[in-house]
Amino acid sequence: MSELQNIKSIAFDADDTLWHNETIFIDTKERFKRLLAEYHTEEWIEQRLIETEIKNLKHFGFGIKGFTLSMIETAIELSEGRVSGDKIERILNFSKKMFESPVEMLEGAEETVKTLAKTHNLLLITKGDLFDQESKIARSGLAEYFSHIEIVSDKTPDVYEQILGKQKIYPENFMMVGNSLKSDVLPVVTIGGTGVYVPYQTTWVHERVEDKEIANHDFIHLEKIRELPNILS
Amino acid sequence: MSELQNIKSIAFDADDTLWHNETIFIDTKERFKRLLAEYHTEEWIEQRLIETEIKNLKHFGFGIKGFTLSMIETAIELSEGRVSGDKIERILNFSKKMFESPVEMLEGAEETVKTLAKTHNLLLITKGDLFDQESKIARSGLAEYFSHIEIVSDKTPDVYEQILGKQKIYPENFMMVGNSLKSDVLPVVTIGGTGVYVPYQTTWVHERVEDKEIANHDFIHLEKIRELPNILS
Repeated sequence: MSELQNIKSIAFDADDTLWHNETIFIDTKERFKRLLAEYHTEEWIEQRLIETEIKNLKHFGFGIKGFTLSMIETAIELSEGRVSGDKIERILNFSKKMFESPVEMLEGAEETVKTLAKTHNLLLITKGDLFDQESKIARSGLAEYFSHIEIVSDKTPDVYEQILGKQKIYPENFMMVGNSLKSDVLPVVTIGGTGVYVPYQTTWVHERVEDKEIANHDFIHLEKIRELPNILS
Repeated sequence: MSELQNIKSIAFDADDTLWHNETIFIDTKERFKRLLAEYHTEEWIEQRLIETEIKNLKHFGFGIKGFTLSMIETAIELSEGRVSGDKIERILNFSKKMFESPVEMLEGAEETVKTLAKTHNLLLITKGDLFDQESKIARSGLAEYFSHIEIVSDKTPDVYEQILGKQKIYPENFMMVGNSLKSDVLPVVTIGGTGVYVPYQTTWVHERVEDKEIANHDFIHLEKIRELPNILS
């Protein structure tokens, strides 16, 4: 881990780091389970949906559209094709509601970004669907605080190295802040940058990293994003 | 239009400029219309699908996932909810087939890119779904010939100006080559660059530009992409 006084550029993850995202998916999953309650138990439906999502990741990536397609596929499979067009339409409407849900900032995120923008070069590095992410960034009202915004399909050490290379930032001057050890923290630590882990209230199964993988890495763990300016000043 | 000897950087569009894309959508539409033949005529189904696609653009953007969701929505609407889970599953399978379809290069595209890479700085600027586009670029085998690849959600004069700014390219040294007047040619001409129009065999309704809009602009029209090195040498 670098000395914190060397940090010149700070990149933030967006979903579940600056604004709520997973809660929208969790709410939709609850509706989905109630919609299909006549066919199976909630646990069974949830398990099948997760399996379908993971199986479809290679085609669909992350985001609302892929999640919706996975819900539809799961509904058909676990009803053995008996699910009605009406219910599929309800699932499509869940999806539209997700797209239209307001961008709800996490507590302290806005003030943290505005404070740090005065002293550091800020970037936004987010994973997911291009269209969806751009829309949320615009609606957040925070776009102007970032010198560079990068929407990527995956967050690996290579991807971070490419971004830093293009932006002419050295890893020792770089800090990445996010709620995912797997995507935000560990790959940045791997390339010699500083990772700051600010866990969200829940973490998606696919994003969980084994404890033994964590033990070999050195990163900063904050409970709240608003503690960030303090540790940097 | 700039003098062609001033052109130092050439950007290519990807879908339907370097490789076939629309044919995959057209084939899928044919299957979709046959699947729903019991409910309506092909013309009616096609018209409703186009309407749904355009209505959903603001949420879904371009790409296979959004197209699939629009097919499902159309199937439910025009069957008044009677479409079976089985048929929805067939539509999901159309989608997976689209994702798995090989990247089929347009005639002359590969050799044109390889030839021009010897004399010019090449970029790829493509619109659409991030995940889908990255996968196709990787499968095309051409990624190494481009100094910069940009996947954008829309192609406006502003978007081109931002890309050129970041890459430190002056418009008078820049040429954009693509099959869409609306997305590839006119916005680049607007900011003072050179636009090269290489029409694809078909053009999607949404991409058509009125003749009167064209009349005020100056761009190069080629029948085949392989004519490009000649006009530049």
